[in-house]
Amino acid sequence: MEKVSIKSLYRNTDEYIGKKVKFSAWLRTLRASNAFGFIEVNDGSFFKNLQVVFDTKLENFKEISKLPISSSISVVGTLMATPDAKQPFEIQADEIIVEGMSSSDYPLQKKRHTFEYLRSIAHLRPRSNAFSAVFRIRSVAAYAIHKFFNERNFVYVHTPIITGSDCEGAGEMFRVTTLDLSNIAKTEKGDIDFKKDFFGKESNLTVSGQLNGECFALAFRNIYTFGPTFRAENSNTARHAAEFWMIEPEIAFADLQDDMELAEDMLKYVIKYVMDECPEELEFFNQFIDKGLLERLNHIITSDFGRITYTEAVDLLKKSGHQFEYSVEWGIDLQTEHERYLTEEIFKKPVFVINYPKDIKAFYMRLNEDGKTVSAMDCLVPGVGEIIGGSQREERLAVLEKRMAELGLNKENYWWYLELRKYGETIHSGFGLGFERLIMYITGMSNIRDVIPFPRTTGQSEF
Amino acid sequence: MEKVSIKSLYRNTDEYIGKKVKFSAWLRTLRASNAFGFIEVNDGSFFKNLQVVFDTKLENFKEISKLPISSSISVVGTLMATPDAKQPFEIQADEIIVEGMSSSDYPLQKKRHTFEYLRSIAHLRPRSNAFSAVFRIRSVAAYAIHKFFNERNFVYVHTPIITGSDCEGAGEMFRVTTLDLSNIAKTEKGDIDFKKDFFGKESNLTVSGQLNGECFALAFRNIYTFGPTFRAENSNTARHAAEFWMIEPEIAFADLQDDMELAEDMLKYVIKYVMDECPEELEFFNQFIDKGLLERLNHIITSDFGRITYTEAVDLLKKSGHQFEYSVEWGIDLQTEHERYLTEEIFKKPVFVINYPKDIKAFYMRLNEDGKTVSAMDCLVPGVGEIIGGSQREERLAVLEKRMAELGLNKENYWWYLELRKYGETIHSGFGLGFERLIMYITGMSNIRDVIPFPRTTGQSEF
Repeated sequence: MEKVSIKSLYRNTDEYIGKKVKFSAWLRTLRASNAFGFIEVNDGSFFKNLQVVFDTKLENFKEISKLPISSSISVVGTLMATPDAKQPFEIQADEIIVEGMSSSDYPLQKKRHTFEYLRSIAHLRPRSNAFSAVFRIRSVAAYAIHKFFNERNFVYVHTPIITGSDCEGAGEMFRVTTLDLSNIAKTEKGDIDFKKDFFGKESNLTVSGQLNGECFALAFRNIYTFGPTFRAENSNTARHAAEFWMIEPEIAFADLQDDMELAEDMLKYVIKYVMDECPEELEFFNQFIDKGLLERLNHIITSDFGRITYTEAVDLLKKSGHQFEYSVEWGIDLQTEHERYLTEEIFKKPVFVINYPKDIKAFYMRLNEDGKTVSAMDCLVPGVGEIIGGSQREERLAVLEKRMAELGLNKENYWWYLELRKYGETIHSGFGLGFERLIMYITGMSNIRDVIPFPRTTGQSEF
Repeated sequence: MEKVSIKSLYRNTDEYIGKKVKFSAWLRTLRASNAFGFIEVNDGSFFKNLQVVFDTKLENFKEISKLPISSSISVVGTLMATPDAKQPFEIQADEIIVEGMSSSDYPLQKKRHTFEYLRSIAHLRPRSNAFSAVFRIRSVAAYAIHKFFNERNFVYVHTPIITGSDCEGAGEMFRVTTLDLSNIAKTEKGDIDFKKDFFGKESNLTVSGQLNGECFALAFRNIYTFGPTFRAENSNTARHAAEFWMIEPEIAFADLQDDMELAEDMLKYVIKYVMDECPEELEFFNQFIDKGLLERLNHIITSDFGRITYTEAVDLLKKSGHQFEYSVEWGIDLQTEHERYLTEEIFKKPVFVINYPKDIKAFYMRLNEDGKTVSAMDCLVPGVGEIIGGSQREERLAVLEKRMAELGLNKENYWWYLELRKYGETIHSGFGLGFERLIMYITGMSNIRDVIPFPRTTGQSEF
């Protein structure tokens, strides 16, 4: 007898009513009297549990009645519609085989656990309702991203994780080395001898695939990366992790307007896709984690995002009369409180802020005619603030070199990046989306540690 | 006027015949006389170039006649069918705008370059025919993998890149650290003080996501990883890179037979998908890189893979009378020459070899009844040898602990892996596929450096 998944029983119930089915699953709850019992099982294929009813006609009734939570079982039984019950159907068991007996000290008993506690059992937490929902949505959203770009003929590029260059010219990086730390190789002068290291030079974990992505955009026109990136920042907040995944599209023959259109289309596509594929999970989050979630998501996919310049935004914030913790002046980097006020109070929908002062943005962003702002864009969404940051890239070799000199960046380290401008410069643009920020936004989960399977943060590389 | 992609001109030619179109692209070749000229352009959306014809009716005829290779241009012109020419159609230009002028010392001139030389200009090589084909196929194959697993309701898991544990209990690893290498923090005893390091303990780059993947398989039943993995092996071969991408599915309630079925289905699906989506690229490889390529790929998707035990394989190799460099005895690890002989000469198709001696396989593989072999499988394919390695995992806690003790592995380091067996042990299986090996197999490219956008190998972390 072929096994079925619980998902297919839920999605195609009519086909199975009155029929015998077989499946394997893990026990989530169990209640039993002397005569009969109820088991809720989950096989990981679907958010909801399946109820199995069993009675003394089972040879191993007694053993089953006492099974610890999380034991794995195989069931043969008949699917019965239960129109008067909470769940639409249940299984009346003919046979239950114990595949793997759990232990009575299983840490995920039915009572509620704090997310903090669940982080300490990251190997087991995907078996809980909340985390099964988070990690299925993470998977579905990742697929939506690939599907979105594939439909538009974008080339997916695996940019390098280990790198000799530092894209942002900032950001604390993790060193990657095979040097013997207890006996570091030294040169005659007494410096560290990186020639003896694996790559023959200082190498670090990447903070962004953008510069490499640009090389490919200038060959394939439209490309994207989707891979892990790293920050060795010692900041112990709910929004920062040392290891996180980023999506970085890069589009050639495209300006900042094209860039914003792409970002808006992508966000809407991914959110819509998750809403279509994971209604049960989103319902759960809407009920238990974030009451306004579904309304907010619906709002996003139906609004046209606003657009405003940084200079206008600063004016609006100053005129708002609102008392901010950090006061607003032209030239400051907008804080989350400012971003949220713009998107939540002024626009009441997502908004792109464009043309930021060059001094608060990266060297590769395209200088505007005014000589003091760059063609940058940040996408702000209600409840979060910035979720996407992007720009048109500086394609003019002379302007780029001048800016790098101003910032003290060494041209030789960027020889290949500069050559992209020498050999067929083309206007091009791109942006970065932090994947975990997106998952937090879609689920309403408020700590980045709770949307990463095995989070890496200061002092935490367990599992 | 809306821009079109060259891909859509090729795929929907009939719609465009006689019509005016606009597009942007890079110049690949140019020939011009005093009266007219031919340009071949490519916009990265499609493998093939598009021919543009222009003449003196263009105001900037002279400028265009002398454009360096790799300049970017925008063209408005009429698409004309050319039934007698090599290419099916061409564009008669009304207007050509120079978007970005390249330089005459552009390194990718029309002559043939060695792959070795092209590696030194990894930022430009995707603009060449061979590498545009390689990296598009890499992207399409990656999508096929996600699509395959998504259709089967597998959950995609991002397992950690930075890790405190060493999955294989072997393999040289890269250290990840924020310690100041010129002044390493020491404990009172004089040891390295890893408490001062970012994660508070020794941390490395992952060699496999499998152990983490198992945690998720025992919650979601069917999962896969697809991410970068690392080996700090100092081996300078055509088949080894320090950074490469792996696909690692893990399936619960599934034995070695299920595992092999999944592997066979996946390989066939991905190869078929690339053949459907990239006929032009594969034709190119078949013609210029590997004459038997298409025949070999066709053979794979139409054969039923063979199955044989290690013990039978050793017997067949010994009886074959073939003179191998490494002689064959029960207990040895099969060399590539043995693997290739099995799949190319004996089976003449892909073959799974199962039940290897436990001493040459990893600690987590399930011990067979005979007490000396494990439920492992390697998938061997003609032209390559091993392309996939997998096993049923040891789910019996006592057997696993015994094996770990035999191998001197410290139980405490694996506490969470062992708990998976304590709390609802379930038979489960999985395998690993090196993504670059697959791309080499599909394209016929023979050096791993030529299927990775920016390869990292001993002494090489440039770009």
